This record gives sequence, structure tokens and C-alpha cells, in this order.
Amino acid sequence: MRIALLGCGTVGGGVLRICRERVPELEVCRILTLPGELEDPLVTHDVADILDDPSIECVVEAMGGIEPAHGFLVRALEAKKSVVTANKAVVAAHFAEFMELAARHDVAFKIEATSGGGVPWIAGIEKARRVDDVTELSGILNGTSNYLIDSMERSGKTFGEALAEAKELGYAEADPSADIDGVDVQNKAIISATVAFGSLCRRDIPVLGIRHLTKPILDALEARGWSVRLLMRARQDGGCYAACVEPVVLSRASEEAHVPTNFNLATLVGQTVGELKFFGQGAGALPTGNAIVQDLLDVAAGEKPRYATAETLEWDPALLGAAYLFATNAPAPEGARLLASAEGSGTGKALSLVFGLDPVRAGELARAAAEADPETFVASFSDEAAASLESLL
Amino acid sequence: MRIALLGCGTVGGGVLRICRERVPELEVCRILTLPGELEDPLVTHDVADILDDPSIECVVEAMGGIEPAHGFLVRALEAKKSVVTANKAVVAAHFAEFMELAARHDVAFKIEATSGGGVPWIAGIEKARRVDDVTELSGILNGTSNYLIDSMERSGKTFGEALAEAKELGYAEADPSADIDGVDVQNKAIISATVAFGSLCRRDIPVLGIRHLTKPILDALEARGWSVRLLMRARQDGGCYAACVEPVVLSRASEEAHVPTNFNLATLVGQTVGELKFFGQGAGALPTGNAIVQDLLDVAAGEKPRYATAETLEWDPALLGAAYLFATNAPAPEGARLLASAEGSGTGKALSLVFGLDPVRAGELARAAAEADPETFVASFSDEAAASLESLL
Repeated sequence: MRIALLGCGTVGGGVLRICRERVPELEVCRILTLPGELEDPLVTHDVADILDDPSIECVVEAMGGIEPAHGFLVRALEAKKSVVTANKAVVAAHFAEFMELAARHDVAFKIEATSGGGVPWIAGIEKARRVDDVTELSGILNGTSNYLIDSMERSGKTFGEALAEAKELGYAEADPSADIDGVDVQNKAIISATVAFGSLCRRDIPVLGIRHLTKPILDALEARGWSVRLLMRARQDGGCYAACVEPVVLSRASEEAHVPTNFNLATLVGQTVGELKFFGQGAGALPTGNAIVQDLLDVAAGEKPRYATAETLEWDPALLGAAYLFATNAPAPEGARLLASAEGSGTGKALSLVFGLDPVRAGELARAAAEADPETFVASFSDEAAASLESLL
Repeated sequence: MRIALLGCGTVGGGVLRICRERVPELEVCRILTLPGELEDPLVTHDVADILDDPSIECVVEAMGGIEPAHGFLVRALEAKKSVVTANKAVVAAHFAEFMELAARHDVAFKIEATSGGGVPWIAGIEKARRVDDVTELSGILNGTSNYLIDSMERSGKTFGEALAEAKELGYAEADPSADIDGVDVQNKAIISATVAFGSLCRRDIPVLGIRHLTKPILDALEARGWSVRLLMRARQDGGCYAACVEPVVLSRASEEAHVPTNFNLATLVGQTVGELKFFGQGAGALPTGNAIVQDLLDVAAGEKPRYATAETLEWDPALLGAAYLFATNAPAPEGARLLASAEGSGTGKALSLVFGLDPVRAGELARAAAEADPETFVASFSDEAAASLESLL
């Protein structure tokens, strides 16, 4: 199959290397880059050289960002080229349009590399849906934030030290906001929920991040048998769905609490298969390149678009109801119960519990608290961790 | 697609229920059972009613055991029917013959349900091999033994109490020998290694079990930061391969050490994708039935046999070299270093370490020790757990 790459940075470079070294039936024929980015006889700086070339059957997009990626992919689909993309931002923003165009022009549109890097997560959801309704999703889909938490837990580093180390190792960007504020996971959650529930997920799902998670807060959690991870969560039931991104307090006996360094771990629940978890490298040139090459092999085998949004589920955040932890020096939310005072908690902040919130309401309360204490940290409790709450109060 | 079931116990019943309730395009047309096993108009007690019916395109075998399953499957393949089986014993014993027959008659032969129940483990290996060589495998593929260890660790039960509980819950059979002595995993390891390495795995791979793992031994491991699980391990490198089944001492920070109850967790390593782990229900009517139905959907989609054994790798157990723990009152093997005496270990047995063994040699030493102390327990160390050994001696 004749392929063109749009973008040849880390991920595009991984695709190029894997195709050339391992999968000769995938022939990279043209590479769109910015001037000065790459020396290769296949390079062009004019996307028309690719979109107007009828011999190119499939376009791999690894540019990132919304535009011009969105415009290029629309034109590629309209030119009846299959599309494989690693770009979570553009897919989360324009999923419906891409699916509609791919179906209309009878070409493939594949997105494995948008969510979970080398982890066969999107394919795992799709496969589960052949037999089951997928009723629940959750997962660690951001390696940077996991690296920070793991590093604080295992090596006793502060958040700042862990972040400096992650930047040195290339696990965090100079501006880590998208990773630590949950925006990166938000896009992956929207994509995963759309594929899993067969219904277009809204774009403004609630998000809480780990920017104000501190080593003392982690220590206070550990002393109670808990850990915390930044998770995507989603659920459907009775014609409704919800999805969110938030730090979740977990039992230290859970699999999630032991995900090391920058690995990902994502879970689906199906009615007959039960709970399935997928673990692997969520980023990096070769793992993410591998995910794209796997998509390309499916396209080369004649696979047509499979993502369906036949369902129209209603948004109901109550499906993700939980107890929430507030670590803040702001006045506690109404109905909060004190777990430990600012003096007694060892964290410099009072730790309070609020039962019976959903992610939307929790976000409102978190923002209200952040007005008085900008370093407020808020997390939900997993069912397993919540089981131990009553005995602590 | 018109299907017949050979056997309709737990797994066959799961397949029947899933097809009837969820996947109407898979039409179960005939069911072979023993007299008195099932009341259903589709039941026959004569396999010829299935094998001689040209309208039946695919046979699902969920009888278990070697014969008559082996003969039935040979006849089905010769009659140009695709075969989907959950029977690890017959596949481990006759894999090459089944693959050869399926290729010759251009039909499918699928085995997802033999290894890891509902976990998409075999499909995961096959998919990884489209891009990478799979260089390493490991995993918890026996829910019964995992349940016993988890129950001892979490609830403080003795081995006998945990086993009684597992029998009550249906997680262990009246005679649990195949599960606790590693024979069940041996078949799964042979199948997994054959698929992963593309080379027929020998049948007599070394096996050590957990029959003589005691709660005091687990406590002694836990005090040193370790857990233990019954693992399949396999590796290929430089034209050679090895595979084994043995208890492995793991860091308590590992994912494997936190696999709960009767779940499975299996890991592969590929060159570009890195480490991938698959977690889920390794047994049970619906998860295992789900694995079979997934295979059936692939067959219905026209998929042909994919397992290849083009490679001919040489057996070299040194690929799985490790340090081993001996918990025994027999004289310690030559070169052993004492970790704790029988008096000091709290286990009633001396704990010794032997470095630089492979699974074959370790098995020989384990059997020699068992002549003096039949309750000898032997386990290898994972690389992570072994890293802490020198500081303990």
C-alpha cells in the first residue's frame, strides 16, 4: 500500500522507521514536513503533492494540533484516501465529521495511536463491542502524570523535583500544562467514550488535574492505604452516559496503583467478557509508530470504517457519582466531613470528604475552593478506596 | 454462519447463550452431548450428525481431554469445517497436526479460548507479530493458583483453607492437581510460545508448582518486599527459545503481585511495541464463551489459519536463567547461600538461594531435594526481585 506521512517528528519518524525496517508492504512514498525539518528525497512542503496524487492510498497524520491538520484530513478523505491519525486533538474536535466523510467515500479512518500509544486500546474496545455493550471505561492514559506520581511515591521526590526529572528524560514538555491539568487525557477520554458507547461524546467533559498534588498529600493517602492516579472514567447505562478526567484515590491493592513510570493502563467492562485491562507504553516514537502501523495493516487488509455513532445517549454525570477528597485551606464545601485538619494532616491543608457528588458538581466546588486557595487539590474515590472511608471518620 | 458445538458444559453453555442472546449471525445448529447432559432439540449423541452435515461450516470444541476430541477435530478439518476450540490439552498435544490440516483444507483453526479465557491473549500475540518479533512472554494464566495465593496474602488463610474456599466458590476442582502442580499452565505455555515464536514448542517444558507454598513462606517473602505467583515464562533469542512454568518471586511493586482473586495477567515483549500486558477473566462460562465467539466472528469474516511455525528454533533453557529460592529441609543444593535457617525463617524450612540456574537444572535440584523433604518449595526470582538479593545476604 502506498502511504504518505503528514508530519515526521517523533511519531512520524517512528512510523517511517518501522515501515522501512519491518513492514515493506507499507511503502512510504511522500512525507510532508516543514522546511528544514528532515532531509529525505521523499520530502515535500506542499500538501497538494500528496492530496492530488491518486497513487497514494492512505495518509498518516502525525502533525498534531487542530489546523491545518483538520483541513488536510478532510481533503484527504474527500480525495478517497484512507486516513490513519495519531492526533487526539483533531479527532476529539472533529470525530463526527471524519467518520461521516470516511463512510461517504468508503475509505478507512483509524485512530488507535490517539489514545494509549502502543496499547491496543481502541482496537480492544472495538473488538469487545462485537459481542458486548461496553458499559464502563477507566484508565491511566497520560504517561507524564503517571511518571510524576510514581516518582513521588517511589523516590520520595517533590512534585517540582519529579517534574524536572520528567522533563530531563523527555517524559514532560517544557510547558506540562496539558498533561498535568488533564487536557491531554480529556481528548483521549472523548475519543474512547465515543468508540466504546457508539454515541458521540460531548467535548466539555469535566476535568480535574494533578497540578496541586503534593508529596505530603501522597504521604497522607499512603498512610491510609491509598494511592492516587489521574484517570479517565466513563460509563453508560439506561440510555445515558458520562465521562470525566480526574485524580482518583485508589486502594494500594489495585493494579492502577502499581503502574510504573510513564506506562498506561486502561480498563473496559463488557457484559460477558467482564473486566479487561490493557497495559503498555502510552507514548514514544516506536510504540506510537507501532499503533499507526497496526492501523495501516488493517487498512491494507481492506478494513473499512468501523466506528459507529448510531446511539444517541443522554449526558448524565450522576452515572459517575462518587465521594470526593478536598485538600484545601478554603472553607470546606457544604456537607463536607473532616478527615484531618490542616495541623493534623501533615499536608498543610485540611483534608475533607464530600459524599454523593458527581464530576460536574465536584468541579464547581473545586473551582469555588480554588478562589480562596488556588492550590486546592480535589480527587474522587474509587469504590474500593471508598469502602474504607466510613471506618476512618 | 452455521455452527455445531462439541460439548455443552460450562464453556459450551456460555457459547450457546452468547450466540443466542447477542450474536444472531452465529447460528448454533447442532450440539453433541453425552446422553442426559442437556435437553435441547439441537442435541445429538452421534458426532456423525455434525461431521457429515455439509451445511455446518464451523465446529466449536469444548469437550476437553485428548480423545475423542482429537479424532473429532481431525475429522472436522478433513471435512473442510473450520474449528474453534477451548481445549488446551488437545491443542498442546496436536498443534502441528491441526495447523497442517487447516492449511491443507483451507479452513480456520482458532484457539483463543485455550489460554487466558476471556483475555485477548492469543490474538494479542498474533497482532504483535504482524510488526514485531515477540521476544518474551510471561504471565499468570491459572486463576485457581492465583486465587489461592491471593487469598493467603490478603485474608491470611492457610493453603488448605484457601483451597477449601476456592472449591466452594467453584474456582478449584475436587482434585486441584492440574492447577496447583502447573500442568494446566504448561499446556497454555506450550500454545502461547508456539504462537509467539512461530516455532513448535516442545511438550516437556519444565514445570514447578505451588503445592508446597505455605502461608509462612509467603509471610517470609512479604517481609522482604516480595510476593510470589505461578507464572508461565518464555523467551526467544538468536535462533533459540525456552519456556517453563514455575512460581516466581516478584517485587511487591509489580503488576503481577496485585492480580486479584482468579484473574489472569499475561505479558508480551515486542521490539517496537515494548511491553504489553493483558488482564482479565481467565475462566468462566461467559468470558471463555466470549473468547470462542470472538474466534467465530473472525471465522465468519473469512479469516484463514494464521498460526505459523515456519521457524525452527533450538531449545536452550539458559535463556531463562535466574536465581532460585529453595525452601526445604533437605540438604541445600551445591553452591546454595543461606537466606534464613529453618529456625530463623519462620517457615519451618531453611530458605536458600542458588544463583545462575536455568529451569531444567532447577527442576532437577528440586526433585532431588524433594526426595529428602517431599514438601520442598522452589521458585525463581524475577529480575526486579533478584536486584534486592545481594543486599540481603
